[in-house]
Amino acid sequence: MHTVHEVIEMSGHIIDSYTLPRAWDTIMDRGGNFDVEEMQVGATKNDTSYVRLKVSAPNDEILEQIISQLQQLGAVMMQADDVHTHTVEQDGVLPAKFYSTTNLPTQVRLEGQWVTVEKIEMDVAVVIDRAQKRAYCRPMHDVKVGDEVVIGHGGIRVQAYERERERDTFAFMQSDVSSEKTKVRAIHNIAQQMKEVRARQGKILFVLGPAVIHTGAGRYVAELIRLGYVQVIFGGNAIITHDVESALFGTSLGVNLKSGDQVEGGHRHHLQAINAIRGVGSIDKAIEVGLLREGITYEAHKHNIPMVLAGSVRDDGPMPGVISDMQVAQGLMREEVQGVEMAIMIASMLHAIATGNLLPARVRTFVIDINQSVVTKLSDRGSFQAAGLVTDAELFLRELLEAVKKD
Amino acid sequence: MHTVHEVIEMSGHIIDSYTLPRAWDTIMDRGGNFDVEEMQVGATKNDTSYVRLKVSAPNDEILEQIISQLQQLGAVMMQADDVHTHTVEQDGVLPAKFYSTTNLPTQVRLEGQWVTVEKIEMDVAVVIDRAQKRAYCRPMHDVKVGDEVVIGHGGIRVQAYERERERDTFAFMQSDVSSEKTKVRAIHNIAQQMKEVRARQGKILFVLGPAVIHTGAGRYVAELIRLGYVQVIFGGNAIITHDVESALFGTSLGVNLKSGDQVEGGHRHHLQAINAIRGVGSIDKAIEVGLLREGITYEAHKHNIPMVLAGSVRDDGPMPGVISDMQVAQGLMREEVQGVEMAIMIASMLHAIATGNLLPARVRTFVIDINQSVVTKLSDRGSFQAAGLVTDAELFLRELLEAVKKD
Amino acid sequence: MHTVHEVIEMSGHIIDSYTLPRAWDTIMDRGGNFDVEEMQVGATKNDTSYVRLKVSAPNDEILEQIISQLQQLGAVMMQADDVHTHTVEQDGVLPAKFYSTTNLPTQVRLEGQWVTVEKIEMDVAVVIDRAQKRAYCRPMHDVKVGDEVVIGHGGIRVQAYERERERDTFAFMQSDVSSEKTKVRAIHNIAQQMKEVRARQGKILFVLGPAVIHTGAGRYVAELIRLGYVQVIFGGNAIITHDVESALFGTSLGVNLKSGDQVEGGHRHHLQAINAIRGVGSIDKAIEVGLLREGITYEAHKHNIPMVLAGSVRDDGPMPGVISDMQVAQGLMREEVQGVEMAIMIASMLHAIATGNLLPARVRTFVIDINQSVVTKLSDRGSFQAAGLVTDAELFLRELLEAVKKD
Amino acid sequence: MHTVHEVIEMSGHIIDSYTLPRAWDTIMDRGGNFDVEEMQVGATKNDTSYVRLKVSAPNDEILEQIISQLQQLGAVMMQADDVHTHTVEQDGVLPAKFYSTTNLPTQVRLEGQWVTVEKIEMDVAVVIDRAQKRAYCRPMHDVKVGDEVVIGHGGIRVQAYERERERDTFAFMQSDVSSEKTKVRAIHNIAQQMKEVRARQGKILFVLGPAVIHTGAGRYVAELIRLGYVQVIFGGNAIITHDVESALFGTSLGVNLKSGDQVEGGHRHHLQAINAIRGVGSIDKAIEVGLLREGITYEAHKHNIPMVLAGSVRDDGPMPGVISDMQVAQGLMREEVQGVEMAIMIASMLHAIATGNLLPARVRTFVIDINQSVVTKLSDRGSFQAAGLVTDAELFLRELLEAVKKD
Repeated sequence: MHTVHEVIEMSGHIIDSYTLPRAWDTIMDRGGNFDVEEMQVGATKNDTSYVRLKVSAPNDEILEQIISQLQQLGAVMMQADDVHTHTVEQDGVLPAKFYSTTNLPTQVRLEGQWVTVEKIEMDVAVVIDRAQKRAYCRPMHDVKVGDEVVIGHGGIRVQAYERERERDTFAFMQSDVSSEKTKVRAIHNIAQQMKEVRARQGKILFVLGPAVIHTGAGRYVAELIRLGYVQVIFGGNAIITHDVESALFGTSLGVNLKSGDQVEGGHRHHLQAINAIRGVGSIDKAIEVGLLREGITYEAHKHNIPMVLAGSVRDDGPMPGVISDMQVAQGLMREEVQGVEMAIMIASMLHAIATGNLLPARVRTFVIDINQSVVTKLSDRGSFQAAGLVTDAELFLRELLEAVKKD
Repeated sequence: MHTVHEVIEMSGHIIDSYTLPRAWDTIMDRGGNFDVEEMQVGATKNDTSYVRLKVSAPNDEILEQIISQLQQLGAVMMQADDVHTHTVEQDGVLPAKFYSTTNLPTQVRLEGQWVTVEKIEMDVAVVIDRAQKRAYCRPMHDVKVGDEVVIGHGGIRVQAYERERERDTFAFMQSDVSSEKTKVRAIHNIAQQMKEVRARQGKILFVLGPAVIHTGAGRYVAELIRLGYVQVIFGGNAIITHDVESALFGTSLGVNLKSGDQVEGGHRHHLQAINAIRGVGSIDKAIEVGLLREGITYEAHKHNIPMVLAGSVRDDGPMPGVISDMQVAQGLMREEVQGVEMAIMIASMLHAIATGNLLPARVRTFVIDINQSVVTKLSDRGSFQAAGLVTDAELFLRELLEAVKKD
Repeated sequence: MHTVHEVIEMSGHIIDSYTLPRAWDTIMDRGGNFDVEEMQVGATKNDTSYVRLKVSAPNDEILEQIISQLQQLGAVMMQADDVHTHTVEQDGVLPAKFYSTTNLPTQVRLEGQWVTVEKIEMDVAVVIDRAQKRAYCRPMHDVKVGDEVVIGHGGIRVQAYERERERDTFAFMQSDVSSEKTKVRAIHNIAQQMKEVRARQGKILFVLGPAVIHTGAGRYVAELIRLGYVQVIFGGNAIITHDVESALFGTSLGVNLKSGDQVEGGHRHHLQAINAIRGVGSIDKAIEVGLLREGITYEAHKHNIPMVLAGSVRDDGPMPGVISDMQVAQGLMREEVQGVEMAIMIASMLHAIATGNLLPARVRTFVIDINQSVVTKLSDRGSFQAAGLVTDAELFLRELLEAVKKD
Repeated sequence: MHTVHEVIEMSGHIIDSYTLPRAWDTIMDRGGNFDVEEMQVGATKNDTSYVRLKVSAPNDEILEQIISQLQQLGAVMMQADDVHTHTVEQDGVLPAKFYSTTNLPTQVRLEGQWVTVEKIEMDVAVVIDRAQKRAYCRPMHDVKVGDEVVIGHGGIRVQAYERERERDTFAFMQSDVSSEKTKVRAIHNIAQQMKEVRARQGKILFVLGPAVIHTGAGRYVAELIRLGYVQVIFGGNAIITHDVESALFGTSLGVNLKSGDQVEGGHRHHLQAINAIRGVGSIDKAIEVGLLREGITYEAHKHNIPMVLAGSVRDDGPMPGVISDMQVAQGLMREEVQGVEMAIMIASMLHAIATGNLLPARVRTFVIDINQSVVTKLSDRGSFQAAGLVTDAELFLRELLEAVKKD
């Protein structure tokens, strides 16, 4: 049988991080084969290993698929050509063989030099600026006629995610989303990491679902903002609406947050909250005139914390400040995730997935939800870096706040 | 203590439908009180009952809340004034005391006559056209300066939802979302109702989540379209993207739908599917040039079934035809739900909730999901009419198709 | 059509507690009919109501079913005969028409006098001791030849469960098992009720699943025992085994409870814990010789708190003290639930259901689990009195402990 | 630092099955270290690899833990001593350093010869019969004074579970318990495997929960028995009680299985069913006298299929034939799993976990439940061989039956 082949090399902790066996799996699962041309195994746990594989496949298409997969594991093609590109011929349409990114650190070879792709995120294209010798991520709908887009797999280098040896909280949580684990320790560890991130002026992103307000935990988030542990907030119409409702009426979805009573039957309060803010024109104005005096939104505005609120088709209102156009909302989220070092997603599914798609793999991401299937779903979406905690949003935030306040 | 009061009357099966005890609950829960001025109890199950209550409350605000609740139970205020209105003074902002709708049939009194509110849906305002003697539902963001909006609670009549006595599938399902029930019978009953709706040319709406495609059940929906059991489809970017992916590549999220194998590691296929359709410009064009030859989207277009696809912030692409602006998407959905008699929502949460908000209570709604908490969430959202079935989307559709094909 | 009939009467808050409409439902759902012979409706919320119904049915069997249902709603048959009985003819076998109990307070008429059935629980028979004029609950397998067992429905009076008007925690929780509610307040309210129960020397029962230990929350239960808030504990082999494992090795299922690390791969520690206690012979002996020095089991023994540990077919070991015979275990649980006023069931399914079956309706029961379907399942099992809280066992217990420690 | 060490060797597909990297992980996670003394890597996917490692650890205890773990991965200690044993000194109590089994094929070295451990299951001890040169699994509570029990880790060889390369249904299912997969194909593949097992006269075990009856799927199991696809059944009081209830009354928990109506309010039918069988004395007698004429239990008895029914503390009755003593029940289950080649566990948790503990790793095990957390829990319990399917019990069985009936 006629076959095609490529030679690739991999190095690092490729054996104890399971990278090499996964590479071999990938090759064989796709119908390819390989020869080990050279292999040096690190003798102790501190030594790295090296392997050079000749990968063969029955045809070019399969070979390309295999190489594409191996690149995500950190493989580099031996014949280091420059990256191949193709010019966009139609706005919002990519060349057929466009290279689709991972969220791992990625480099492309331009005139013999490895250049880091900027603003890395998953599932987008890479646009080359030859004049500046720079490379950027660009979502499909944003490419313009004339953009030079990376195609194929040559001249691309992806830095694989190496599982850390340390048994830290992260590893502990990552291994398992079980609710049957001691969580206080995990929460304290998250608090510790938040302090470290803030000590080096890093940004912490919170993605919040409306259950944060319904459970009465909004005040803990407000306090975290005041203490300087929140640098950016993502959410939707529901979180801001119920936050404002709770500030104006003391209720969330009509339930009194102090007494737990249903104050009035329907959803009237949340509509009144939206209408009231629409009446004065904006959140800024509502704060200025003294209408809005507390809550997450209030604190965020007082402390100049950007809130990106992406609407959805189920929204009432919406509240002023909520973005109705999804491309615009994504665009703003893309800007705000720059520089984020840690993301904490609580009781949110839609906005958490949207955010997960935009975050580079290096961002430590914690997903907190009481529903195990939500946590699993988020952890499964190719976000290597996401760790899940199946627990109660309210009690999580209460504990987290106490933990960051201790020295 | 000084109190305020109103006299209301209720009639119908107000005792065996629990309407009267619920009314009394409501009054007392809100801090009011009542005297039974007159009561006639139907002696047998076929007789209706009548009650006239003098409702008192400590102040006007509480009285208004109580009356607002009682109206949703079908209470009518005795002093039948005309409906009160207030003029909109700012685009997109309602008068402070605006009346917020339920999804129940509603009438307003105009110049002594009861006029039915058109296009009834939940949580919106009622706009009066005095010239035409008509009343319409209007979402907050759509009201314009000069619109005459209903305020307060006088002159409004809501037709309460009377629990049916028949122990039909619907009642059976509605009572409980347990997975521990025999479902084949429930599915056959849904099939029977679909036939009845179609026999009188009624519209059936399907709201579909991407798991319909991932589980390989897209072909059952395609067949239901061909058989004439689908008149309108709601969904998002995911359902159409994976449907087109499966038509173009035989995969969904990269998993071969015949073999179950992961064909290629990442999400590349779905991005290629989007890019391919963007390349030719539209779904229509893709069908015209022979690129798209099968699947739900293909059948829908061939049979002139409208698909309203509302985007979300997590979308890749999006696929041409997916609406990025949420107000526009809601507006289209509002148009398409007119005339719908039955709604079947499968493995969808976001779009199912959005649709539930727009449907009048008279539309029979079935929510099918394997996750009990989704079914509960949807049933709980004030949609009296939603019945849930905790089961497998794929096996549900397979069985439903078989059932409609039998005579 | 020939029909049979009975006249029954009901009184109390039969309208605002929905008792009367439920009675009418029951009659019609079973195929019967009724005439209202007399009805007096309480005019205000403080007045009680009265109704006398003539209930008819197509045959005796259906009439009996209807009357059986109505009795659970508090209906009393007008022709107050003495209770009917039949003698047991075979050990462990009941007469064919035996009366099956509810968990509601129940009386039987003996020689014209109403006698309260002792040790009331669900789904068992009532045995009459004519000499002593007493009546007892007795499970099927415990009846002996010659026991006089109640049959039919005459001469039985059940005190219906009247929904309370107060919007207390209990009502709040009972209405809904949603995780999207503020729980801190509910927990504080439970703490308050615990204090009240203890102030009057009432017994509090804890039913514990092994996740209490796995999550590191065992120490909170131990502290509650020391503070006098636990009078009896039910559980299985898992809770005691992991509690002893954590006392001996600092681990639960091999996971270090302080660091969260997997100390050793398998389950060896829990087997060693069982083996160690088996080696010294008993928990008592293990405490005496200084082998067991801390934990729930230790504290329970030190404070003379009975632990009833019912084994199951999945157990390893078992640990000494775990009861292998299910009839024996049930018998002991029956004894220990006497006098219990409050039951708190945490992260347990099997033992929680078993306990729920034995508890009279008057016992306030709280079910805490992170899995909504467990909470729903337990609340649904005919235990009117069970309130559910979907939350994290560890954080629940931590908060509960803090709350009882505050004055 | 002083260290202790052992030399071990591993061979086979130790790299592409991740065995070697997992071994290195284990060593380092436990605080040990290693040197690669010799390593031969198979160059292609058909070649096996070999490695000899010198494993060192800070003390004997840690070294023992590491070696214990490595043995489960198939490592063999180089200095092949005979197995070490210690004599039982107290009935039901093991020697302190007893070797705790896995469910993998295991051999012990007796007088220089490798002898296979019989009746292998998880978490039990190994007893040596030197006279017969045989070795058996024995649960802790069954050991007697004088039994010779294996201790330590020398002289033990465990055959590691090698992940199969073929992408069969099993691998497909094992990888993921997601409900978002096409299941019809998986079900057909299970049917195919059932046919293969039966073609070679292998035994198929069904573990059944009561939801099989509640959902009306009992008739599919009955048909599978008639067709010869069921050789042994495990379950509890609930499955047999509701099966008999459905045979006698056409209901399950009082719900008519044809109409879905609640026939009578309470649980009376299931108590009557138990009482009726107790009245005639046994299931056998009930069939003989014509009382029981259909259902799973009836078919099982007609076809001489053993049913092992282990009671639990929550049982009513129990039904004759249900075993009340847990040690006795486990003992019978141990006997009946001998020879089982395939296990299908449907809508059961307690009995499925109990069975999983007893099954050797070679038995193909399928776990079907609509609740993802149950499937995850079962798959996680160290049963490498368990594959999960998150789907509806009723529709699963319906499809499975259709699939086995096709040729």
